Amino acid sequence: MKLTGSMLIGANDIVGMTKEIKAINPATGEFLEPAYLGGTKAQVEQACELARTAFHSYRETSLEQRASFLEQIAEQIMALGDDLITRASLESGLPKGRIEGERGRTVGQLRLFASVVRAGRWIDARIDHAQPDRKPMPRSDIRLRYIPLGPVAVFGASNFPLAFSVAGGDTASALAAGAPVIVKGHSAHPGTSEMVGRAVRAAVVECGLHEGVFSLIFGTGRDVGQALVSHPSIKAVGFTGSRAGGLALMKTAAARPEPIPVYAEMSSINPVFLMPGALKADAEKIAQGFVASLLMGAGQFCTNPGLAIGVDSPELDAFIKAAEAAVVVSPTATMLTPGIHKAYETGLNQLVLNPDITVLARGKDSDAPNQCQSALLCTSAEAFLKDSHGLGVEVFGSSSLIIKCTTAQQMLAITEALEGQLTATLQMAPDQDEDLVLSLIAALELKVGRILANGYPTGVEVCDAMVHGGPFPATSDSRSTSVGTAAIYRFLRPVSYQDIPDVFLPAALQNANPFAIPRLENA
Amino acid sequence: MKLTGSMLIGANDIVGMTKEIKAINPATGEFLEPAYLGGTKAQVEQACELARTAFHSYRETSLEQRASFLEQIAEQIMALGDDLITRASLESGLPKGRIEGERGRTVGQLRLFASVVRAGRWIDARIDHAQPDRKPMPRSDIRLRYIPLGPVAVFGASNFPLAFSVAGGDTASALAAGAPVIVKGHSAHPGTSEMVGRAVRAAVVECGLHEGVFSLIFGTGRDVGQALVSHPSIKAVGFTGSRAGGLALMKTAAARPEPIPVYAEMSSINPVFLMPGALKADAEKIAQGFVASLLMGAGQFCTNPGLAIGVDSPELDAFIKAAEAAVVVSPTATMLTPGIHKAYETGLNQLVLNPDITVLARGKDSDAPNQCQSALLCTSAEAFLKDSHGLGVEVFGSSSLIIKCTTAQQMLAITEALEGQLTATLQMAPDQDEDLVLSLIAALELKVGRILANGYPTGVEVCDAMVHGGPFPATSDSRSTSVGTAAIYRFLRPVSYQDIPDVFLPAALQNANPFAIPRLENA
Repeated sequence: MKLTGSMLIGANDIVGMTKEIKAINPATGEFLEPAYLGGTKAQVEQACELARTAFHSYRETSLEQRASFLEQIAEQIMALGDDLITRASLESGLPKGRIEGERGRTVGQLRLFASVVRAGRWIDARIDHAQPDRKPMPRSDIRLRYIPLGPVAVFGASNFPLAFSVAGGDTASALAAGAPVIVKGHSAHPGTSEMVGRAVRAAVVECGLHEGVFSLIFGTGRDVGQALVSHPSIKAVGFTGSRAGGLALMKTAAARPEPIPVYAEMSSINPVFLMPGALKADAEKIAQGFVASLLMGAGQFCTNPGLAIGVDSPELDAFIKAAEAAVVVSPTATMLTPGIHKAYETGLNQLVLNPDITVLARGKDSDAPNQCQSALLCTSAEAFLKDSHGLGVEVFGSSSLIIKCTTAQQMLAITEALEGQLTATLQMAPDQDEDLVLSLIAALELKVGRILANGYPTGVEVCDAMVHGGPFPATSDSRSTSVGTAAIYRFLRPVSYQDIPDVFLPAALQNANPFAIPRLENA
Repeated sequence: MKLTGSMLIGANDIVGMTKEIKAINPATGEFLEPAYLGGTKAQVEQACELARTAFHSYRETSLEQRASFLEQIAEQIMALGDDLITRASLESGLPKGRIEGERGRTVGQLRLFASVVRAGRWIDARIDHAQPDRKPMPRSDIRLRYIPLGPVAVFGASNFPLAFSVAGGDTASALAAGAPVIVKGHSAHPGTSEMVGRAVRAAVVECGLHEGVFSLIFGTGRDVGQALVSHPSIKAVGFTGSRAGGLALMKTAAARPEPIPVYAEMSSINPVFLMPGALKADAEKIAQGFVASLLMGAGQFCTNPGLAIGVDSPELDAFIKAAEAAVVVSPTATMLTPGIHKAYETGLNQLVLNPDITVLARGKDSDAPNQCQSALLCTSAEAFLKDSHGLGVEVFGSSSLIIKCTTAQQMLAITEALEGQLTATLQMAPDQDEDLVLSLIAALELKVGRILANGYPTGVEVCDAMVHGGPFPATSDSRSTSVGTAAIYRFLRPVSYQDIPDVFLPAALQNANPFAIPRLENA
């Protein structure tokens, strides 16, 4: 596919008029053609107006129409073939194999949401039939369904150029809910964004939908994003990125004449708790799994294990020794962008300069540009508890801090001191440390969205039971997930219909149940 | 029951130390003993600390324990007997029959939530079983349940001293979700609040729960409310009241280091659309039903029909004539408080002084204190569209504005111009005005939480399919309802458990399904 450098506003290719964006191949530092110009406020408004118009027909597409559309997007993405893999790899520095896997996840996600749409469980249809003879007052016929909030603004993430970007989880779940989507493509991968955007547009055309169902815009800085989130036609926001970026969007959304929900996934250091019994059983194996998770994708995952907590002991020493050994031989890995690389170095240096932190090991170094040199740090529980926000800061990349506790009880104190997180992991042995495990799980439930045993937090399954979310500041809204089928609920609201004649009811609530969906009915 | 003037902080009766609150009998203007002193910041903190502690055990009560607790509250409220009815009637000016009905609604609601808790559908338990042989990667065992957000602050409403107050819908749904509750009692009915608060406390004792599961505090002005909403232990807020009050709480909640959800129900004028066919069929009967709904409870309902929209025609004239006739003979009714009465007069005067508004009819007048004299006003569609926020302002009380349209299409323009509302009503005849009805329903779905046909908006059924909510500024969060069983979802968030051994899983997710709840299971 020939890239044009255009934004995709409905059916039109529209070139921006503000600051130029060019992707950089982070492995070489070279700029990649073409240039993309950022959108103006008027161009953002054009996309919003189209989305507003499209909403009326799109939200009432049949379940089958909407599901087919999602499947068609998946097909169109696959039809991009190797061009997409090559471009995404160039723009992100991620190996082709990883991008291929991510494409599989992306199209799998779209197809899963197609099945979610068809099943219709998300409509949560409820029917309380009339009780004309009830005393002292008759009951009306009352029916409920969930409808989409309205057009959704999606901000593509840097670290998943496919799965959390133009046709990623936020877009898939919003489209599944019946919401038109305007994506602000991430400036790190505009070419990938254009390719995927064209695939989505092709699906819109193929399915005969209103052009405003999907638009793709670009912009550096915050102007375009703020214009989008401020626009009265936008009714919800999906964002994956930095805490500063997420907080700025939350502020803008709350200050609107009509405040709107923001689903921002912002930061997490994903603590791994090393139970004494587990370390006794096999400290070395746990250390190897831990470092493998830490190094994966240059540590550029929201679920990267940035913290490990253990009780000072010969077993913890064995864990540390094995982890050090795995880290020192680890080669560097290309980071996504020069900016992310610089932030990694800066963030890591800040921790290294902290007198309470010891550097246990660094990975290999390299002269190539934008390389992540992994790092393993250590501190005491006392030091961490004294400044949990300072030492518990997210350093995006392959860096992790080990906390040595003097007692198992200190693990609980550390849990209490943690900010909200996406995940927490317990390394535990069967029939050991049971009280500690129970206490930790109870405390962690209030701090994280997902608790794992004897695994590692990287690798987020797309399924019904997944929660990729968690208390603030891991996300802006702990009541939801951005991965898995429950993500659709973010973009819905309930509406009741009282004594509305059948012919005027939405299909989901008509007596004949033409969508054949599950409904809660009370006689 | 002898009233003490105390706040109820956990198991302790604690007298406040700030400004005195005394209820007023609005029918006579006389103060009612005893005096209640407002709480201090330290007293608020005491209640919050108790709630934080109680949360740990309360959130893991069994479904049966929690359901029994809700039923016990209902029993304890009934055990208050006529004392409660007498006091609530004195403090609110509402007739005893109405208070008895409201008590029935309140205990019915508590019992309904008990059945909701037992059924366990709200847990939304999901189990994705492990797939160890899946290629290319095995799947973990992943399970999801919803857990309570944490302690909830509830602000009692003035207009329902029982059903939207100390043990009202917000409290019932929060307790059902597993959240301890701190109620700030409304200053208009502190005696009723103390009585109901003591009933809740008695149920806490009876069920052997931690004392911090429930506290009741008082306070004038905004200090106590702001201290409560700012407190780090509070994780969500339920509020029913004025727009200014709700907006202030939203602001405070968003400015916290950890922002929290606010469910504020704020204002609504509940438009009634008069279809030409319906007026042709029986304008007089519709007018009578409309005025009956308008006058009910001195118009002091969030669902009071404050707006009627029809096409200028002989049939609309017939409707107006009949409505006028019903209004002019309507006696005054005592309003809840001198403040609400004053706000009614001020708000109404402001509309009356508007040159675009004609006064069609006023109800009877009276020299008694705090009387609502009903009002029927009229304006043109042009005038309304020119200043929809000014003319569409809520005047809390028995006042309604009729808009005369020149065309049926103008009804759609008015719908577009409306702010978010709790309800909209269509008066329609069978087989007539079908296109208009369809267009109106489509437009209204995006503006309101509940659409009714051929009824009146007052009277909110407590059931599975009810939505008492709607787009901003009707509420602060359109994704939920404050009445009906779906209200429980406001106080929940999802948590995932990955590969957690069965013995450490919460009961709702254990293999044996000891709660015997419905679960979504994928092999």
